[in-house]
Parts: sequence; C-alpha cells; structure tokens
Amino acid sequence: MLLGLEDIRRAKARVEGLVYVTPTMTSRTLGDELGFRLYLKAELFQKTGSFKARGVFNKLRSMDPEALSRGLVSLSAGNHAAALAYGAAVVGAMATIVMPATARPSKVEATRRYGGEVVQTEDDILEVCLALQRERNLTLVHPFDDLAVMAGQGTVGLEMLEQVGDVDWVIVPVGGGGLISGIAVAVKRQRPSAMVIGVEPEGADAMSRSLEQGAPAHLDKVSTIADGLAPPFAGDHTFRHVRSFVDDIVRVTDVEILDALRVLMERCKLAAEPSGAAGLAAVLSGKVSPPSASTVSVVISGGNIGLDLLKQLL
Amino acid sequence: MLLGLEDIRRAKARVEGLVYVTPTMTSRTLGDELGFRLYLKAELFQKTGSFKARGVFNKLRSMDPEALSRGLVSLSAGNHAAALAYGAAVVGAMATIVMPATARPSKVEATRRYGGEVVQTEDDILEVCLALQRERNLTLVHPFDDLAVMAGQGTVGLEMLEQVGDVDWVIVPVGGGGLISGIAVAVKRQRPSAMVIGVEPEGADAMSRSLEQGAPAHLDKVSTIADGLAPPFAGDHTFRHVRSFVDDIVRVTDVEILDALRVLMERCKLAAEPSGAAGLAAVLSGKVSPPSASTVSVVISGGNIGLDLLKQLL
Repeated sequence: MLLGLEDIRRAKARVEGLVYVTPTMTSRTLGDELGFRLYLKAELFQKTGSFKARGVFNKLRSMDPEALSRGLVSLSAGNHAAALAYGAAVVGAMATIVMPATARPSKVEATRRYGGEVVQTEDDILEVCLALQRERNLTLVHPFDDLAVMAGQGTVGLEMLEQVGDVDWVIVPVGGGGLISGIAVAVKRQRPSAMVIGVEPEGADAMSRSLEQGAPAHLDKVSTIADGLAPPFAGDHTFRHVRSFVDDIVRVTDVEILDALRVLMERCKLAAEPSGAAGLAAVLSGKVSPPSASTVSVVISGGNIGLDLLKQLL
Repeated sequence: MLLGLEDIRRAKARVEGLVYVTPTMTSRTLGDELGFRLYLKAELFQKTGSFKARGVFNKLRSMDPEALSRGLVSLSAGNHAAALAYGAAVVGAMATIVMPATARPSKVEATRRYGGEVVQTEDDILEVCLALQRERNLTLVHPFDDLAVMAGQGTVGLEMLEQVGDVDWVIVPVGGGGLISGIAVAVKRQRPSAMVIGVEPEGADAMSRSLEQGAPAHLDKVSTIADGLAPPFAGDHTFRHVRSFVDDIVRVTDVEILDALRVLMERCKLAAEPSGAAGLAAVLSGKVSPPSASTVSVVISGGNIGLDLLKQLL
C-alpha cells in the first residue's frame, strides 16, 4: 500500500498545534554562488530538534486509547528516541526506547530528559525492542517503516510547498527513508514536475543498495559521522515509496557532510547536526546539480549535536 | 530631538524588500525552565548576518542621490562595516570603512567580499574616519549615533510587536546604543507597559556609565569577547534615547555571554556571535528577572563569527 496526498493532509490536521510550522530560510549569497534560488527548510527548529516529532505525533494521535495506555516501545540512535519520549509525555503515555550502546550521550540524555525509559544494549537493537514489545505487550512506534509515521513526516513536504510554491528540486537526507517517503508523496502528488532527490552517507547507503538490488537491503556494518542516517536497513514501506516517488538517491562522504555543516554554521547561522547537513552536502559537492536559475529546497532535518562533538567537528 | 513612532514606521517602508522580516523563535523547554514565555527575535538571520543592515538601508534611502554618488565612509569593528559595504553595493555607491587593526579577520573579509574598501589602522578609528570624510568629501554613515540609522534599527521593534503582540519584557544587547534606541521608541510608543532592558558587557559599559554620570561617557579601554558591543563611547543621540525610553541597563560578564552562546547553539540551534548572545546571558544569569509567566522577547542581534573562533569558544 502506498500513501496518498489525503493521508498526509490528515496527518497535518492531527499534528497541528503539537509541532511547529518551521521556517524556510534563504541564503541569497550562497544561492547566487551556486547559480540557483536556494531555500533551506529549517526542520532543526522542530520540537525535540528534528522532524521526528511529526511522525511520532501522527502515529500517537492515530492509536486507540487502550493501546496508548499499555505503552510504547521503539528503537533509535537518537532523534526518534527523543521525539517518542516527548510525544508520549505530551499524550500521557509511557515510552521505552532501545538505543545502541554507542548512541551519542547527548541524545540518550535528551531522551531521558523528556521522560523516556532508555534501554541501552550492545545486542541487536531490533531484537531487543521486539522482545520488550512481546514481553510487556507494548505498541511499536517504528522510527521509519510505518505508514502513520511516514505520513507525519510528509507534512514537511506540505509546508514546503506552501512556503516555496514554485519549487523545482527538493533535496532530502535519507536514513531509513521515512522522511523522504512522506515528502515525496506530498510533493509529487501536487507538483509532479518537481524532482525529489535523496541523500545518503556513503558509509550507510541502505536505500541506494535497495534500489540497485530491487529489494530492501540490509548492511553488515555502517560507518558515518551522520548517526541519524545510519540505520543498517531500508524499510519495506519506505523502499516501495522511494521506488515509486523519488527520482534519485545520491551518496555523499563524511568530509562533504562536514563541509556542509560548517557552511550552515558560518554562512546561514544554523547549528545543524551532521545528518541535517547531508542534503546541502549533495548540492555543495555537485553530486546534485539543479539547472541554473531553478528553485531548490533543501531539508535541514535536525540539529541535535552535543557541544563537545560539535567543537571537534568544526 | 527624539525619534517618534512615525520615524520608525517610515523607516520600515523605506527598507521593505531590502532587508528580511526575521523570524521570532520560541524555545518552550528553555522558557519553562526559566518560568516565562521566551521568544528569540532571530536577527542573526538578517542580511549580512546582523540587524545593522536595517539602519544602513534607512540611511542610504534617506540620502540625496548627489551625496550617495560622492560616496560613504564609516568606522566599525565589523557588523556595521559589512552592512554598509553591502548596502552601498545594492544602491550603487562606494563605501570606505575604517576598521581597527584588531578587527576579527572574518569581519574584515566579509566587508571586502561585499565590495567595501577597508582601511585598517592602529590609530583612533574615529579620527581616521573623519579625516577621510573631509579629504574625499564623503558622507559619514555613523554606526549608531545617527537618527536615520537608529530609526532603521527600530524596525526590529515594530516587527517584534507584530510577532509577539503581548510582550512584557524586551531585552536588547547594547553597544553604541543604536539598536535599543530604535526598539525602545517602537515598543514604548505602542506598548508603554512593556519593560525595555539593555545589556552591556562589563568590560565595555559605556552606556551604563553614561546613565550614571548623566552624560555620554568615553571609556579609556574596553575588554570583552563581544566585539560588536565594544565601542568605547555612547552616542549623544543614543544616550538621550536610552535615558528617555529604556527602563534599565545591566552588565554581563564574558563568561555569562559564552554560556548563553552555548545554550543558543545546543538548545536553540542558533549560531550566534558573542554580541548576539548578550541579551540571553542577562536572562540566564538572573541579572534580568522578568516575573513568572510573563512574555519575554530577547533580541539575538547577530551571528557573524569565524569558525576558528567559534571552535575555541565552545
């Protein structure tokens, strides 16, 4: 089953007032240097610091009260964890989130600060999560491979078209593919001429490999500075949506991501995390080259980064 | 002579389309911790990276074409320099800016990139500037002590009231006093009940001393990380406006400024420069304590900082 525009519109009504309408910024001088009109959808200003709050709220507002009262469980390296902990607290539910032992301390802390129960493990986080789900009879709120979550993320695309109606190219960071799936439905169903391009780290390219092999890929290992884009597999739902609605996925290196992070900081005054800078990295590196004078909107998907790490990366 | 609300409104009409209407951001969790509704007027997203573009454009659009064609001159440690260079380029004028030998290299570069002629000197920059003005028959665009410049900066206040109509406290960084003068007129003439508070670095407190001694003060030396707040004197015009319209000026330390800079970065995802963080520093340090549940708007006045320095400061 594929999402339709109506699913995204219903999601928008459900999450209204629970999440921010984030601003779209422009950098005239940077755009002039690149040769097109550049817009940045500043989703790093979203509640909990990333777009993830949108999908979480759409999911929680779609669940029946009995399931909510039994509690929620999920797995995440960070941004979905914080968003789920926050969303659960807002609707009065309990959330348990399984995080890898290697998760960034700042993201673990944020999740706990929002009231989530964190289980850190060196074992496979999906297996630990599913075991908890069975044992405690919880509802899984998948970080990306869930139609309600994907529809919630798609509200970024609806807002973008309201803010930049004549957009020609939409550039989106890709981890598990939930964000780009929702955005692609919202954009392609309203403006079929617009190109929708995903951006993955070279060291965590599950979606690119999925497209190449024609089925959702699993990676034996991932290696990237962009921890938010590093799930080792593509989802079934997200793979189908990407195959149906997305024009291309490109890969960027960690060096390119860090260059983009620095440009966002110095030129655009935006403190993005590496994952959030991946879309701009594709544009700055020339791996995505929109034609001259076109209108390009890049999603800056999150800004959750501890100052110690940021200091190292600058 | 004191500015009136009509002067600020006329300035707004003059600069429309030349400067951005900057967003007002909110940080719910930070506000909850502080006990009031916290808004941040994100003027670091202004053209050239600080509010200075507003005053420059109002001045240039108020000048007669003959004076514009003879050229402009000014003195600045950085943000006014970049704004004047940019503004002059937009209206087709030449600008010469005298900068101290100690000006931050990133700010000198930005000024040159926008097309300004930079004269760096170890002598008194005001004297060098006035000598150039006479010698070349140029028009001085003072960085703060000029009614047209002050009225332009006041458009920040008009926008703020449109964005946060029920504001109770307005907190503004103070260097020479141009920004707070304009904002105070805009706010007090529309909402007399609102408190307008200025914030100076302890090591560059010319306006506080001016209020204490009842006349514009000159400092023998200044010492602060907030280079944008470090002019060694208050203006005549700005002193009169601050005395008439501003409720209080408080002093913050460099340590408090840097704490606020880090909070803006980590919690609010805003890459501010030290000067831009001074207003928040006053709130976080408790030097300004709005009553519980009040509505507080803090101006984040600029974001021009080189990455090398930022890396050191984090």
